Amino acid sequence: MLDLAIRNAQIVTAADRYVADIGIREGRIVEIAEKVGAAAEEIDATGLWAMPGGIDAHVHLAQPQGGGVVMADDFETGTRSAAAGGNTTVLPFALQQKGQTLREAVQAYHASAEGKCHVDVSFHLIITDPTPQVLGQELPALIKDGYTSFKVFMTYDDLILNDAELLEVFDTAHREQALVMVHAEGHDAIKFMTRKLEEAGKTAPYYHAISHSAVAEREATHRAISHAELTDVPIVIVHVSGREPMEQIQWAKRRGRKIFAETCPQYIALTRDDLKGLNMDFSGAKYVCSPPPRDTDSQEAIWEGLRDGTFDIFSSDHCPFRYEDPAGKDVKGARTSFKWVPNGIPGVAARLPVLFSEGVSKGRITAERFVALTATNPAKLYGLYPKKGTIAIGADADIALWDPKVETTITQAKMHHGCDYTPYEGMAVTGWPVRTILRGKTVAADGEVTGTPADGQYLPRKISGEAFPG
Amino acid sequence: MLDLAIRNAQIVTAADRYVADIGIREGRIVEIAEKVGAAAEEIDATGLWAMPGGIDAHVHLAQPQGGGVVMADDFETGTRSAAAGGNTTVLPFALQQKGQTLREAVQAYHASAEGKCHVDVSFHLIITDPTPQVLGQELPALIKDGYTSFKVFMTYDDLILNDAELLEVFDTAHREQALVMVHAEGHDAIKFMTRKLEEAGKTAPYYHAISHSAVAEREATHRAISHAELTDVPIVIVHVSGREPMEQIQWAKRRGRKIFAETCPQYIALTRDDLKGLNMDFSGAKYVCSPPPRDTDSQEAIWEGLRDGTFDIFSSDHCPFRYEDPAGKDVKGARTSFKWVPNGIPGVAARLPVLFSEGVSKGRITAERFVALTATNPAKLYGLYPKKGTIAIGADADIALWDPKVETTITQAKMHHGCDYTPYEGMAVTGWPVRTILRGKTVAADGEVTGTPADGQYLPRKISGEAFPG
Amino acid sequence: MLDLAIRNAQIVTAADRYVADIGIREGRIVEIAEKVGAAAEEIDATGLWAMPGGIDAHVHLAQPQGGGVVMADDFETGTRSAAAGGNTTVLPFALQQKGQTLREAVQAYHASAEGKCHVDVSFHLIITDPTPQVLGQELPALIKDGYTSFKVFMTYDDLILNDAELLEVFDTAHREQALVMVHAEGHDAIKFMTRKLEEAGKTAPYYHAISHSAVAEREATHRAISHAELTDVPIVIVHVSGREPMEQIQWAKRRGRKIFAETCPQYIALTRDDLKGLNMDFSGAKYVCSPPPRDTDSQEAIWEGLRDGTFDIFSSDHCPFRYEDPAGKDVKGARTSFKWVPNGIPGVAARLPVLFSEGVSKGRITAERFVALTATNPAKLYGLYPKKGTIAIGADADIALWDPKVETTITQAKMHHGCDYTPYEGMAVTGWPVRTILRGKTVAADGEVTGTPADGQYLPRKISGEAFPG
Amino acid sequence: MLDLAIRNAQIVTAADRYVADIGIREGRIVEIAEKVGAAAEEIDATGLWAMPGGIDAHVHLAQPQGGGVVMADDFETGTRSAAAGGNTTVLPFALQQKGQTLREAVQAYHASAEGKCHVDVSFHLIITDPTPQVLGQELPALIKDGYTSFKVFMTYDDLILNDAELLEVFDTAHREQALVMVHAEGHDAIKFMTRKLEEAGKTAPYYHAISHSAVAEREATHRAISHAELTDVPIVIVHVSGREPMEQIQWAKRRGRKIFAETCPQYIALTRDDLKGLNMDFSGAKYVCSPPPRDTDSQEAIWEGLRDGTFDIFSSDHCPFRYEDPAGKDVKGARTSFKWVPNGIPGVAARLPVLFSEGVSKGRITAERFVALTATNPAKLYGLYPKKGTIAIGADADIALWDPKVETTITQAKMHHGCDYTPYEGMAVTGWPVRTILRGKTVAADGEVTGTPADGQYLPRKISGEAFPG
Repeated sequence: MLDLAIRNAQIVTAADRYVADIGIREGRIVEIAEKVGAAAEEIDATGLWAMPGGIDAHVHLAQPQGGGVVMADDFETGTRSAAAGGNTTVLPFALQQKGQTLREAVQAYHASAEGKCHVDVSFHLIITDPTPQVLGQELPALIKDGYTSFKVFMTYDDLILNDAELLEVFDTAHREQALVMVHAEGHDAIKFMTRKLEEAGKTAPYYHAISHSAVAEREATHRAISHAELTDVPIVIVHVSGREPMEQIQWAKRRGRKIFAETCPQYIALTRDDLKGLNMDFSGAKYVCSPPPRDTDSQEAIWEGLRDGTFDIFSSDHCPFRYEDPAGKDVKGARTSFKWVPNGIPGVAARLPVLFSEGVSKGRITAERFVALTATNPAKLYGLYPKKGTIAIGADADIALWDPKVETTITQAKMHHGCDYTPYEGMAVTGWPVRTILRGKTVAADGEVTGTPADGQYLPRKISGEAFPG
Repeated sequence: MLDLAIRNAQIVTAADRYVADIGIREGRIVEIAEKVGAAAEEIDATGLWAMPGGIDAHVHLAQPQGGGVVMADDFETGTRSAAAGGNTTVLPFALQQKGQTLREAVQAYHASAEGKCHVDVSFHLIITDPTPQVLGQELPALIKDGYTSFKVFMTYDDLILNDAELLEVFDTAHREQALVMVHAEGHDAIKFMTRKLEEAGKTAPYYHAISHSAVAEREATHRAISHAELTDVPIVIVHVSGREPMEQIQWAKRRGRKIFAETCPQYIALTRDDLKGLNMDFSGAKYVCSPPPRDTDSQEAIWEGLRDGTFDIFSSDHCPFRYEDPAGKDVKGARTSFKWVPNGIPGVAARLPVLFSEGVSKGRITAERFVALTATNPAKLYGLYPKKGTIAIGADADIALWDPKVETTITQAKMHHGCDYTPYEGMAVTGWPVRTILRGKTVAADGEVTGTPADGQYLPRKISGEAFPG
Repeated sequence: MLDLAIRNAQIVTAADRYVADIGIREGRIVEIAEKVGAAAEEIDATGLWAMPGGIDAHVHLAQPQGGGVVMADDFETGTRSAAAGGNTTVLPFALQQKGQTLREAVQAYHASAEGKCHVDVSFHLIITDPTPQVLGQELPALIKDGYTSFKVFMTYDDLILNDAELLEVFDTAHREQALVMVHAEGHDAIKFMTRKLEEAGKTAPYYHAISHSAVAEREATHRAISHAELTDVPIVIVHVSGREPMEQIQWAKRRGRKIFAETCPQYIALTRDDLKGLNMDFSGAKYVCSPPPRDTDSQEAIWEGLRDGTFDIFSSDHCPFRYEDPAGKDVKGARTSFKWVPNGIPGVAARLPVLFSEGVSKGRITAERFVALTATNPAKLYGLYPKKGTIAIGADADIALWDPKVETTITQAKMHHGCDYTPYEGMAVTGWPVRTILRGKTVAADGEVTGTPADGQYLPRKISGEAFPG
Repeated sequence: MLDLAIRNAQIVTAADRYVADIGIREGRIVEIAEKVGAAAEEIDATGLWAMPGGIDAHVHLAQPQGGGVVMADDFETGTRSAAAGGNTTVLPFALQQKGQTLREAVQAYHASAEGKCHVDVSFHLIITDPTPQVLGQELPALIKDGYTSFKVFMTYDDLILNDAELLEVFDTAHREQALVMVHAEGHDAIKFMTRKLEEAGKTAPYYHAISHSAVAEREATHRAISHAELTDVPIVIVHVSGREPMEQIQWAKRRGRKIFAETCPQYIALTRDDLKGLNMDFSGAKYVCSPPPRDTDSQEAIWEGLRDGTFDIFSSDHCPFRYEDPAGKDVKGARTSFKWVPNGIPGVAARLPVLFSEGVSKGRITAERFVALTATNPAKLYGLYPKKGTIAIGADADIALWDPKVETTITQAKMHHGCDYTPYEGMAVTGWPVRTILRGKTVAADGEVTGTPADGQYLPRKISGEAFPG
């Protein structure tokens, strides 16, 4: 006897689309058939699509911030929002603070996450202090323990690694077969532009988008690719914003380099003009993130890249700060210069509906490609496959049921996050995840989060190399 | 009760890889599970890979030739060879001869194929006489009847369409939502080079490869792409031989054009040096095909293209002529000039082992990509999906069981074709299709063809547009 | 004693700019110095620029047309207009009519030109009937006689060569070291589009620009380049209209191919919107030429190409037809379909002022580059250098004195041609050629043509290979 | 009466080639004519080519080195060598040492050069300490004084500027209209590779070429181009070694960016294999320079770039260290690791013969292009034109007479430099500068240096913007 039978759904994988029943036992998919046997729980999914639960591979939760700023989501609210948006796994970061050991950082995040996860969770590390001890001892040990990917920053005063450090970190990743995620923006170029803008009195949130130029992003992307070429290591260029960095990535891929790329909803649904707010007022701060959204030409380039394989994964870069909050966007100084506005916007709940509606419903990408970008590829790339990321025998029963026809609107209420706004407020969408099933249990349905913070499990991960690209 | 249970195989699809049982009833896959129920026939596939049966989308069988030449395979031997090589569907051509109506051509091929097919079969048309009657009446009617793709030639005296004709044909395809396959080589450039070579006394089979230059192929590829751009129609550039035409295809794809591309085993396993035979003797004729194999640089480019999506499908362009035969390669005149050597080589049985061994076993492509290139994508591109091309509930039970570890050699005996040689004779391979299952029936196993010429069915096809690319 | 001294001009060559006197004796420059000796005739050129007289390498004069159409300029009016526009040499075409021998064609044009040339003249041939006799006997003999370049057409019913003919002609040029000029537009693509437009009732002159698509021009450019690669011959792609064909030329140049390129004033000063006339009326016929002007993006590309060496020469493609004339643009049928409107516009007088004003005066190109594009490079490319094309000791004293500061307007009155309009009417320009000196004799000055039709000489030419590119 | 008449030379400029006499008075060219008048000194140059005296825009003389190393040439020997090699102007660097004011640096170099120059001299600055004082006060003042170009380093411990500094320096150049020369190699990438090589015991001079990878050069080139794009300033990428950085430069030029490029004789006449010496011994140290020579593919790319305008100038990067000398290549430590071998090779005398022979004599570039690359373009780019860089009325009479036919060999004896070797020893060349004339005075002839160290003058320079590119 099955625990759960989902009947008559159109199953969508990264390659296929067909109607069948899904049989689930002990949290795993054990049977897919024209008709599976009886089950304790039955779901009639006629007319719905069963897709692998979303894997959001780029999420910031409960990360300590400087200057009195507090991230708007902790593990409880962040994973609740994820569940509401059709996700069953998120990969937040465990950030090493300068002076901290990696192990301490990891333990702190585990403590922070313990018992507070509505969906399954695994951690990328963030390396900010690549001492010989960190690179020679700690990191190899953590990789063995299943922390098989880590992120480095080429900008932000408190996170940046210089080129010498990047090369050492890349070299370590090469040796240990870990995967490096790179935030590629040129730090000095941003600071230079910031100073010039401030000198010119251009301090509104909009100028954030000018200070973080496409040139600076392109340059850092090229630099990261070159470092990866020297050290012979695969890397992921995360949150790619538009045409300029994409050209570097395409050039590297054509040369056979293992350069993976990620983009995010803000780069298809927003432009820098959104940062203008209402007549250049502070409301533009709601859209301040890095890299910033660009223009419609870059949006077109992104779509082409989502289709043609330039992009391997699509994540949210969820990084929420409350708008009307001195511990958020309105932190001390933020109204005097864009440079003090916390960088980041929420998106873990909006990611899938935005891509589904703008992509699948509008015919820009197929449903299969949607699954590949949002679940299968992230799982393969980050060592969670085949446990996660697909609908197949033996996989965890992580399934999002979508109504592909429903027409609705994105609203703050539907996001279920800790932030006080969504940058996609009022956006009309076609298609919505009406039920999220985590290892056989429904954790969200019909706009309500039905699970508990105890539902999520922690996921150690394999190294990624073998499985990807598929 | 199931008709057939395949137990414990590693199932490979274009996206996934997992171990499960497959349950088959009435020729279709009805269940995939950790353990399916009892079946009339049981196959223990432990250690084997279950992949979708190969779909060879480019096969020439029983095509009438001029000058006393006879194609070495009719439908019986050709489909027998296909089954031996792990295929369950082939798409041969129904060639319109000048003056013939399309309907007459189609009927002739049906008559020729009737009762002689070891695997399932569908026809592409070849348009050689695009009269207003053909384009305005016949073709639309045939497309409605499921002949949804057709091929045109930019070379060969008896097949060539000029640019005006190509544009009309493309325009018809646009209107009727059919798919056009293009043999892209510049006719006049080939004839020019041929004359120059002959004048220089360079008449050995090797010079075929010089006369059919990469430049001529590249030029025709660009021309076909331009015609497709003007008429807004998707086309497939078939049997792409190397870097030069690939660059045109990549350029078109980057611009968002719907240009699909196919390559073949001869372009990864042979080079033009094979045409030298033994010291430029006639044995090079065994490798004469068009476009000819190029060089190792082009082979590398092809591999990159198989990985990065430049190529959507991988077919054999099986076009067999017996070597020691005046009705084959040794036709009257062939020893006086390469230009009389029949163009074409056999490959329907060798296609999958060559790609599996050189690609999957050597780590150049994943098993998933192998499935995509050889089964799923051809099915989607040519309107056979989801009935064909994957292992999923509801699909035909067309399955090849592979032993991924076995080390063997390609030999003439294993090809089971009507030709008297294989160009891959003696090639060492790792991995072999040990059983071919067509709609639940084993039609080949352990090197023997076990089915009958009555096993294959004819397949009408849908238009391709919606399903692809996935 | 000198015949003529030009004092105190700023001399501009393709490389240099400096103030000096120029001393001329017997039609040649014999001295350039801070101060040359006394002369029979003195010109004070203080404040003026002395540049090499323009060489317009692409001019149609007195070419027979079908259908009752008469070209608006014969040699007398055409060369008069050239002189008025600062030119001292023009290269019209001697068109072989089908069935005619080349020698007959050449003799006919010599007869037509005899005693009617205000400036020096040399002929390119146009090959329309490449019989073995023409390619094997006539052409080699004419090349030896100094007709060292010839043009071929890839479109126009009465001029087109097919690919087989193009290859034979290119091969002959390779053997005889002649230079081939190519009108690169895809004939069948144009006819196809024309039919589609006519069927849609789109017959206004504007649709000429749609029928002659950039795609068709790009395709033919690629094809010509490929033919040139196969035959190893340098070619000139004439009258390149914009970005699409330019990309092909740039790609070929980067690969080291000897592909030269020409553009014209209509591609920097007009767009396809000019063909709309007044609300799509017939006045758009004034701008009908092939290839047609494109858009502002292509204009920008052209400027970049003029700067970066994509373009080697800048010519007029002067091909004049009277507007209000049934033997001109208003020929029978022209008002029923654009396809009957004679293709061509006047430009031999406007070429230099348009490029000077838009290019040099607006800072887009240097004066030296202007000289290279309009005089030195054409002379080198077509075998007239060093007799023509520069200001240097020993060269013919062909000098245009320019007032670089004068602001004026292009008007019909200033063109001095046989046409009844100029497409540049009313265009404001800065800089004008105030005196044209042909071998030491002033043939135009202050808006008047002061020479006689007996002033021009015929120029046999050398083969081009050695001198160019410089 | 003229001071000097050079009779019957073939004069070559960047655009032209013609036979004439040159008349010189008071050090300047005052007359070019079929026959100039009588002169105090007469040179019969029949059969010789008169080309503008070479301008070597990249020369290191008497630069202080750390670690007991002494540069092999001071101003006397360096400029003597320059004169011997057909040069009339060199542009050495005035290096700011950390802590030094720019003015002090300049004064030190003037003192060092005073009375010791065989040819004319001007200084580029090297900025190593871009304090606000330096950028805000000193540099603007020095630019006004004619020091209109300066160089920055992206590598070398004692010279490197970081990205923040580069951006400030570029921004200053933008504001003051100065030209920035960039040594583009990625510092950290070089150090990383050096450490890896040393750890692997790879310490021979050859590994210098591995440590200074093409990737590191390409990355820094891209980075410099990006900084220049942000600050909107023209820059010169100096000593470009091969295909990888060239592709970045070509990409930038195609986008219309003002990126100039220089290459040097070592990149066409040497490869990294020269660093192997005799079986990896220390003699490879003779070829250690940065960037290092690459391979034959890069040599071909360089030639294509010299032809097609990727490269604007061709300089020597003369930077001599004695080989058998503990104050030179054999400095303490150099035999234990390549990283201690002083970087640099001599070339000021060999530059022109190497390019002439390999380029002009072998038909790879025209004589006009040789003049452009070695004299006219450097003069225009660096603000010396039209006083320097051409043969025209009013210009300084800086002329090199070349015998284009003579076949000889490059030897140490012919270099006349302070170094104890030439890396081109034994290289066969066709063409040699047989006489160097500086402002009308013969300073070298027939292999002897005939001038005195008092002959050279210091040259303040204009800003470059207007004159270039020509």
